[in-house]
Amino acid sequence: MDLNLSLNNSKGLLLSEWINSVFDSYPVESGKFLKNGKNRFSNPVGYNIAKDLETLFDFIINYSDSNKPKIRESLNNFLKIRVVQDFDPSVTINFFLNLKKIIYSNLNGHLNNTNDLDNLMDLFNTIDSIALEAVDIFVSLKAKIYEIKANEMKNRFGKMADRIMKKYGIDENFDNDTNLSEGS
Amino acid sequence: MDLNLSLNNSKGLLLSEWINSVFDSYPVESGKFLKNGKNRFSNPVGYNIAKDLETLFDFIINYSDSNKPKIRESLNNFLKIRVVQDFDPSVTINFFLNLKKIIYSNLNGHLNNTNDLDNLMDLFNTIDSIALEAVDIFVSLKAKIYEIKANEMKNRFGKMADRIMKKYGIDENFDNDTNLSEGS
Repeated sequence: MDLNLSLNNSKGLLLSEWINSVFDSYPVESGKFLKNGKNRFSNPVGYNIAKDLETLFDFIINYSDSNKPKIRESLNNFLKIRVVQDFDPSVTINFFLNLKKIIYSNLNGHLNNTNDLDNLMDLFNTIDSIALEAVDIFVSLKAKIYEIKANEMKNRFGKMADRIMKKYGIDENFDNDTNLSEGS
Repeated sequence: MDLNLSLNNSKGLLLSEWINSVFDSYPVESGKFLKNGKNRFSNPVGYNIAKDLETLFDFIINYSDSNKPKIRESLNNFLKIRVVQDFDPSVTINFFLNLKKIIYSNLNGHLNNTNDLDNLMDLFNTIDSIALEAVDIFVSLKAKIYEIKANEMKNRFGKMADRIMKKYGIDENFDNDTNLSEGS
């Protein structure tokens, strides 16, 4: 069995199962909406998820090191939405691992020898490494949100301090061991 | 082939490969130290990593839903050290996925039929689900660190504001639309 050929031939089926597994992770009504009509303008979130997953699917089954930057870009687009929508990391990362189950259940019975199995394991390792890349991106996107919140807090306190100082005519060097830039 | 029996019989070999793959992720000198003599008192970090991974290994190859709380506890112990030591999430989560490669390379050639393969896939799915649990725990431990930092910042600003107000005899209701509890 030529694994690559077989996956390219079943692309439509595998990809639609994969995309639907992502839409099913949304609350029932949203999931239904996302599934219905992947039109760029009437359903931009559904359209973008489907587009990013198709790009990733092609990169996964025709994997090469030179595609890494493009894979990272697609992962970033897909994960940005999930982080902002506050999905659990495990639910999000599971989509990548899930693709293996979808592939295995569609290939089952067509694995004829050790060579086929080795090729399948190589593909699964590739999917795992993309899932790990997704973990790093997910964590760094989360970290960015925390940084934004921390900066907002700093700004709020800074403005409050400015207001106090302005109102009472306090010089910003009022205290030798403390100034407003502390903690920046 | 009885997969479970085979894994229990090879436990020593598989576990030591797995533990060494974790130690190898540390800088060379630390890795060497961690590997040498897993004594509870002279090498507590190495000892604890090896202990947590053995517990996890037993839970994985004899998996049952009732063990989930214990698995979570072992993961938490293992991940706490990694988060504090500031390891990349992907490097850390990879240890769990890595166990599959170790198992596959040791079993290779002993998979005789579709049933064996289905059992192996079930085991790999179990390992994946434990890796996903690890992702959630890793992210929540990271979030805790961010919260601690945010609280420290709040305290520092709060103390600074207190100092200004004390020094200038300012009432805490100095400004109707602003007080120090804002942003808590």
